Amino acid sequence: MLVLELERRKISMAIPSSVISDVPHLREKTAKIGLIGRAAAIFGVDEIIVYHDLSNFNFKAEADLIATVLQYMETPQYLRKRLFKLRPELRYVGILPPLRTPHHPIAKRAADLRVGEYREGVVIAETKKGVLVDIGVEKPALIAQTRLPLGKRITVKIENISGKLTAKLADPEEIPHYWGYKVTVWEGSFGNLAKNKRFDLKIATSKYGKVLTTIMDAVAERWMKAKTVLIGFGAPDVGLYEIVRREGLNLDEVVDFVVNTIPGQRTETVRTEEAVIASLAVFNCFLGL
Amino acid sequence: MLVLELERRKISMAIPSSVISDVPHLREKTAKIGLIGRAAAIFGVDEIIVYHDLSNFNFKAEADLIATVLQYMETPQYLRKRLFKLRPELRYVGILPPLRTPHHPIAKRAADLRVGEYREGVVIAETKKGVLVDIGVEKPALIAQTRLPLGKRITVKIENISGKLTAKLADPEEIPHYWGYKVTVWEGSFGNLAKNKRFDLKIATSKYGKVLTTIMDAVAERWMKAKTVLIGFGAPDVGLYEIVRREGLNLDEVVDFVVNTIPGQRTETVRTEEAVIASLAVFNCFLGL
Repeated sequence: MLVLELERRKISMAIPSSVISDVPHLREKTAKIGLIGRAAAIFGVDEIIVYHDLSNFNFKAEADLIATVLQYMETPQYLRKRLFKLRPELRYVGILPPLRTPHHPIAKRAADLRVGEYREGVVIAETKKGVLVDIGVEKPALIAQTRLPLGKRITVKIENISGKLTAKLADPEEIPHYWGYKVTVWEGSFGNLAKNKRFDLKIATSKYGKVLTTIMDAVAERWMKAKTVLIGFGAPDVGLYEIVRREGLNLDEVVDFVVNTIPGQRTETVRTEEAVIASLAVFNCFLGL
Repeated sequence: MLVLELERRKISMAIPSSVISDVPHLREKTAKIGLIGRAAAIFGVDEIIVYHDLSNFNFKAEADLIATVLQYMETPQYLRKRLFKLRPELRYVGILPPLRTPHHPIAKRAADLRVGEYREGVVIAETKKGVLVDIGVEKPALIAQTRLPLGKRITVKIENISGKLTAKLADPEEIPHYWGYKVTVWEGSFGNLAKNKRFDLKIATSKYGKVLTTIMDAVAERWMKAKTVLIGFGAPDVGLYEIVRREGLNLDEVVDFVVNTIPGQRTETVRTEEAVIASLAVFNCFLGL
């Protein structure tokens, strides 16, 4: 039997750790991170990478805050209490908008589950038969003959709902629709990240880049062939050319394209979260994310 | 002498009064309005129209809040104290991001003014010679032989900076670059607005609309000819089809195109401010705002 596998293109987007440095209060920092998480989900971004832009801010603390809030948002509501302890960084997560993606299901009762459905869950107990997993309904699902660490977040596929609720461990890669983003903190800066071999296609956004429509054919040709794409964004006060220059590198040499997705911008600067939504919208509409 | 006049296309965008109803606190309402104001400025929108979406919220209060905050943002920093009294709605304007448009100049000293420069000002005194106008530098500019009401916001063109600072009244229409947006509260709903004769081209955004790229040629043909364009957005919980249906009208009949600018969205809903940035980005990149 011939199995045709349609492998989804993986989109990673890179944002600078100083993205939240232009607002002083944690509440607005949280809102800003929330917008970036929402943008990632709306457009199906697979990975958000927080890179070190070598600014004077505290990389460790800022990157940790950004990653924690993004991960919190990406976690289904019903697992948040199990996976996140009360931490000062999470003080304002109440203002975060819900993602409302397929992996954040609203159904809360086992009776509403369907066989074959995927759910995110957390391992809450071990039994002689296997492990019990909280999947956000009133009773846990059994994954038979399996050993997994308590507290581990996993993806499961529902196997049986009549009588005993059972599921099996699933690989998120097998799920045919968007299943959230992962968050990576990259200790290096953007140039260093872009030089990494992980990406088939690397695109930087900059107001000094080429207007996307003028190089659309060249970008589209590479885009269609790429299995992994990196889209990079600069910081509120300093763009990617300057960020990469701080590393002693040249942006034009470390990425395949530097594109301007907001030609003729009327404001002196575009903030990172605005650029993220705008650029992902343009890529999605004309290249397909 | 032949004068070629390149008349700029005027873009109006319509947002529902209930746009801020999905966040309870004034601080987040203010932030949400701030994003919409920023998007308008980034992409050079000329007018933001707040329409009545016939939801159960308090139209008068919400429309007033949205319009007041948008107008506050659009006012150059140096005129805000003269033009806005302390009002409860403005409690959180401190978190609004600056627009950083050409009509919000940073220069604060008369010595940094240039002859021929445009500035926004407020009439602060009458003299025998004319009116004195605060234009955000240490001394007022004189507009000679002119009578204008005290407290009126006007646009001026600097005439003389050596010795006496003088200016003349200017028409914002003559300014060759983006000069901010105006804010209109429309007491009717969107269908009613779109039926208005003001607009050469009316575009509604909806996830049920046609994917923009599939009708790009038809949209572009109308776009190029249009002097006035209306771009409409729905509410967080209810889209434009439903909003117009509440008026007893059919969206497809009151606008020229219903477009989906976010094909394949991975989230159940897209919030208005997200849709505004995404849609304006797509229109700007591929049609030119």
